[in-house]
Amino acid sequence: MDVQHNHKNQQEGDIESEWTDGMVTMMEKQESGLKEPLLLRRRTLNTTSQIAIVGSNVCPIESLDYEELIDGSHFVWFFNVKKCRFYEAFIAYAGCNIVLATAAAAICAYIAPAAAGSGIPEVKAYLNGVDAHSILAPSTLFVKIFGSIFGVSAGFVLGKEGPMVHTGACIASILGQGGSRKYHLTWTWLRYFKNDRDRRDLITCGAAAGVAAAFRAPVGGVLFALEEAASWWRSALLWRTFFTTAIVAVVLKAFIGFCRSGNCGLFGKGGLIMFDLSSTPTTYSSLDLIAVVVLGVMGGIFGSLFNFLLDKILRTYSIINERGAPFKIMLTMAVSLLTSCCSYGLPWLARCTPCPTGIKEECPTIGRSGNFKNFQCPPGHYNDLASLFLNTNDDAIRNLFSGGTEGEFHIATLFVFFVVVYCLALVTYGVAVPSGLFIPVILSGASYGRLVRRFLGSVTDLDAGLFALLGAASFLGGSMRMTVSVCVILLELTNDLYMLPLVMLVLLISKTVADSFNKGVYDQIVTMKGLPYMEAHAEPYMRNLVAGDVVSGPLVTFSGIEKVGNIMHALKLTGHNGFPVVDEPPLTEAPELCGLVLRTHLLILLKGKHFSKDRVRTREQIMKRFGAFDFAKAGSGKGLKLEDLEIGEEEMEMYVDLHPITNTSPYTVVETISLAKAAVLFRELGLRHLCVVPKAPWRPPIVGILTRHDFMPEHILSLYPHLSSHK
Amino acid sequence: MDVQHNHKNQQEGDIESEWTDGMVTMMEKQESGLKEPLLLRRRTLNTTSQIAIVGSNVCPIESLDYEELIDGSHFVWFFNVKKCRFYEAFIAYAGCNIVLATAAAAICAYIAPAAAGSGIPEVKAYLNGVDAHSILAPSTLFVKIFGSIFGVSAGFVLGKEGPMVHTGACIASILGQGGSRKYHLTWTWLRYFKNDRDRRDLITCGAAAGVAAAFRAPVGGVLFALEEAASWWRSALLWRTFFTTAIVAVVLKAFIGFCRSGNCGLFGKGGLIMFDLSSTPTTYSSLDLIAVVVLGVMGGIFGSLFNFLLDKILRTYSIINERGAPFKIMLTMAVSLLTSCCSYGLPWLARCTPCPTGIKEECPTIGRSGNFKNFQCPPGHYNDLASLFLNTNDDAIRNLFSGGTEGEFHIATLFVFFVVVYCLALVTYGVAVPSGLFIPVILSGASYGRLVRRFLGSVTDLDAGLFALLGAASFLGGSMRMTVSVCVILLELTNDLYMLPLVMLVLLISKTVADSFNKGVYDQIVTMKGLPYMEAHAEPYMRNLVAGDVVSGPLVTFSGIEKVGNIMHALKLTGHNGFPVVDEPPLTEAPELCGLVLRTHLLILLKGKHFSKDRVRTREQIMKRFGAFDFAKAGSGKGLKLEDLEIGEEEMEMYVDLHPITNTSPYTVVETISLAKAAVLFRELGLRHLCVVPKAPWRPPIVGILTRHDFMPEHILSLYPHLSSHK
Repeated sequence: MDVQHNHKNQQEGDIESEWTDGMVTMMEKQESGLKEPLLLRRRTLNTTSQIAIVGSNVCPIESLDYEELIDGSHFVWFFNVKKCRFYEAFIAYAGCNIVLATAAAAICAYIAPAAAGSGIPEVKAYLNGVDAHSILAPSTLFVKIFGSIFGVSAGFVLGKEGPMVHTGACIASILGQGGSRKYHLTWTWLRYFKNDRDRRDLITCGAAAGVAAAFRAPVGGVLFALEEAASWWRSALLWRTFFTTAIVAVVLKAFIGFCRSGNCGLFGKGGLIMFDLSSTPTTYSSLDLIAVVVLGVMGGIFGSLFNFLLDKILRTYSIINERGAPFKIMLTMAVSLLTSCCSYGLPWLARCTPCPTGIKEECPTIGRSGNFKNFQCPPGHYNDLASLFLNTNDDAIRNLFSGGTEGEFHIATLFVFFVVVYCLALVTYGVAVPSGLFIPVILSGASYGRLVRRFLGSVTDLDAGLFALLGAASFLGGSMRMTVSVCVILLELTNDLYMLPLVMLVLLISKTVADSFNKGVYDQIVTMKGLPYMEAHAEPYMRNLVAGDVVSGPLVTFSGIEKVGNIMHALKLTGHNGFPVVDEPPLTEAPELCGLVLRTHLLILLKGKHFSKDRVRTREQIMKRFGAFDFAKAGSGKGLKLEDLEIGEEEMEMYVDLHPITNTSPYTVVETISLAKAAVLFRELGLRHLCVVPKAPWRPPIVGILTRHDFMPEHILSLYPHLSSHK
Repeated sequence: MDVQHNHKNQQEGDIESEWTDGMVTMMEKQESGLKEPLLLRRRTLNTTSQIAIVGSNVCPIESLDYEELIDGSHFVWFFNVKKCRFYEAFIAYAGCNIVLATAAAAICAYIAPAAAGSGIPEVKAYLNGVDAHSILAPSTLFVKIFGSIFGVSAGFVLGKEGPMVHTGACIASILGQGGSRKYHLTWTWLRYFKNDRDRRDLITCGAAAGVAAAFRAPVGGVLFALEEAASWWRSALLWRTFFTTAIVAVVLKAFIGFCRSGNCGLFGKGGLIMFDLSSTPTTYSSLDLIAVVVLGVMGGIFGSLFNFLLDKILRTYSIINERGAPFKIMLTMAVSLLTSCCSYGLPWLARCTPCPTGIKEECPTIGRSGNFKNFQCPPGHYNDLASLFLNTNDDAIRNLFSGGTEGEFHIATLFVFFVVVYCLALVTYGVAVPSGLFIPVILSGASYGRLVRRFLGSVTDLDAGLFALLGAASFLGGSMRMTVSVCVILLELTNDLYMLPLVMLVLLISKTVADSFNKGVYDQIVTMKGLPYMEAHAEPYMRNLVAGDVVSGPLVTFSGIEKVGNIMHALKLTGHNGFPVVDEPPLTEAPELCGLVLRTHLLILLKGKHFSKDRVRTREQIMKRFGAFDFAKAGSGKGLKLEDLEIGEEEMEMYVDLHPITNTSPYTVVETISLAKAAVLFRELGLRHLCVVPKAPWRPPIVGILTRHDFMPEHILSLYPHLSSHK
């Protein structure tokens, strides 16, 4: 590095003239030969961090002396050199990217397919009560961590933020289920969390910790958990997430302090505020406000368009991905190649810009990050597109956000970068790699903001960096539809408190505009994945139905003391998770609802084999037999299965007392209650089963059980197709 | 002002020697005469804002020339002058304060007693479902605004933040009930908000707007509404409060821009960030963390002690206040006099400090605010206690928070200020004046923080201003028990993002410590006022009871078509707000629960006098007669009363069809449901009535109705006294 730097001054006079005239087309490059100046290539490599990290040792020859080449024929040499450099560097670059991408896709496709994508929709669904298959399993956690590292290193246009939220949730879940028996990591004291509510709380805290760690935004993490992740919120939860993110902040701060010496790679950089902008009180006129409103409206449109296109692309991808792991990997490789082509090829088309004078920063940048990548430009010049493409995402965002850099990026550069990142973000999300949406949306939003600033330059005097921030806010608002959390996250990212009113305004406008087109991106993915997510509000047509209208299927009830054979039969034939228990004469005067038993508890009870020959209550014996934690919630996929039971013919004819495991206080609704009200009850209390009791006393004591699926619009509309027209 | 300034240099050499020796005791002052140097007094007045605002025209003589007095006998003159100045200035100061305090107390005591105090507990109770008498009435709004202005001007140790929250809620409530008929301010379009839920949402937004305006903290406002004010939270509400506070921020910003010229008094000062601290990345060691932990623990203890003492004092005051308006006013005057004595008298005891060298600020301060009040000190010196006492609360906080001012305040000054403000805050809150707790708590916390910094000076190197901020956080956490909202409010007040981890840590510790002693101050006031606030969690002993155990009183039910006389009788005899309607044969085969009617709806129906001679359904006629908005929620205290109905003897024997106004989808629980579960249902859904239905089918179709009062611990423990031991 030092050697190359020393040579720069000698080189300067000779080749500057050829470079300063701007655009060098691909055609010209094709004409050149195969000779290769390694030092030049090394410089390119060293100033582009993605290559720098993965590919800095591609060529071992370093001793070739530069001076020999600078002679009279340097012009011919130059083009000779360029072509070979172009291809070899591209192969090194794209090759490394593809290898990393393939690694990410392979572990994802073969070990834990659930780890693909952001993970935020799944965490959101889990906190709503939908436990998708192995979404929080240890294998998912493993793939999420390493897949995300590989994916980000592979230069994809994707973020690490979503995966970190998912990672946080996975860790919380594993703690919540008392460690992992499979991997011999168990802690006894953790069994106190083995219930639905504590596990849900832990996972909410995990998601908050993920955001807090990803953006170094502790308060933003709390608000993200509140606004986006959690479906049920309690004041205790606010306190717990706050506690979690405070610990995250203190630990982060300690690590950053430890890494200040620079021996932790890129981690030590940036400090607690990742994109610290010099925050000075700014005034804005009403004309500025108009510009901001325009930015917000268009940001909302672009954001909802992003959601629309993403939905289409994901649906297309799912056809490919469903064909098996090799297809997933091939798709990932194709996208990786496309990404490499764009990020490597496009900077060659960009104009070299002379370094601005009177700035503190080094220009061109030496080292891994910075606003001014030299790329193929002569000394004293920089390639603005390379400064965005061939950089870490964090640095690209920092470059775009940085203030007082009006003329640093060409309008064409911004346009190309915006279009490419917007499109790459769309095609990247669906591949089998852990990928977050925050960073791509912020990147495209920031370049969009700077573009708008250029077009509205006559109207507004606000800083271009500020416009980049507002553009990012408008895209986040338009795509993810978060308000307070995005606002606080951006505040904690940039430390620009003075711009809070403008950020709030932009978020309001873009969210409002986008809401008139479609749903937020995470909601959309939840819907696309077919997860039965309960919305906070009942659909309007639900007001025209009563609870009794949608209770489906034949009802399977048990007696308080039931024959084992009947229970086994019911468990085999139905997939129900809850069964009502009805006490009948002679136990009671008339049949009456005793309560609800859960499938998992029935299995544990049957496994215990505490049966009796006659219909007698055996509460005491059963209570002696089972401890308090025997019925605790098992880890996902760890519970007993029906096949695990071995019950003989004789035992089938015996009786078992269900009273000890019956929940005698189930929530009930009368069958004539409005379906909308039942839905609100179901949602607000976070229920899994809701018993529907008859209104008329002469009927059997229970009409049916409402579950989550009974409230899904598809179910209701399949029963009452005419309602879809009212929808 | 300019004249006085010019004279300063001439005066300097003469009297400096007498002043620099420090403390001048009260005894000495008593010996002096009555002559009065107006120019000197004017300077004192002008550098102390409370006098400056209210008392700058006390003496009309301005032409007396100063030079005449500076002669050989100036030493004797000096002490002569001081005594008269001391008394006259005190009388002017205390007199103005008492007049203002009396005005505030008078309008409060005679027009709207509900406007006394912070208002946050009442708003919190309203959002929980408790509509305390005239708490959101227009008269309360009027008194809250003007009482708060008078109260703050009177120099009390109280804040404007709580009253601003209450003001916001009042304005929202008035908008929500369609304006005020009494004051001829009505808007037809506002009638769309005339229902419980929309009004609740509006008031939540109003509270958020209050905080946003008071602290210029829009995000803090949203979080305050979420964490402290609201009992029910929906994602739509998050969005609405965010919208509200964004508008507040934009409007505030516009006004601040407009007032930049300085012609809006103190409003234009400070900008959007009230106490802008120069925020620089700071590192802290583990020793610093220990100091912060100590600060947090002690802050938590002081905070909970504050709550404990406040409760005792409020209970004592209520004995005085209950005796009538004159007593309220006298109490207020006494507290005002005490406050004046402290804030005027104590700075005389303080040592004069030479101005620090090499600072940008003017010293001593000229004008209304600043760190260095000259008070009675010679030129080039300042009185540090006067800089805190004789200043606006905002400026005092700014002085304490300002960084790099280690030696600016003497340790004795900080101690005196801390003790006096802590005690004055306690005795001030209960008087009949709108008063907030935020500012006193922040003030005492900030001085406490600086004190701790002094004592732990050997352990920590952190800035004293930062310790003041952390001290304020610890007191807020210890007293109000808010976490995220206080954190964000402090962030938005100070723009000191780098200190976020420390602030979070302090808040966590102080809240945890304080929670082990007593409840948060607002919860405590709600309890003390006897408002039936529903806690988010059911008490543990509720698990041992079932819903049927606590249903109280004789149940009054109506038939679906009921005799008018019966309804009138029931309305007269009971105070119930909801009555179950039971359909009986021949309408149905057996008696069954039809639904619930509300008292207000019954009154409106009876007023309409649509009666029939026989038991027939008259749904269609009734539906024709009443429009959709006839049953809309009336403004508080605006609804029909039983006395308004004039129903003749003959009509009493007629029938009225209750079906059109019956809510046929009431939420129900079976009588055997655990009381804890019923309480969760009641609280989570924000219910007012919960029907308890029997388990056994042969019983009447309804057992009783649970209301808020049935879930109150007092009610339950009065029924089952033995439970109190388990509590």
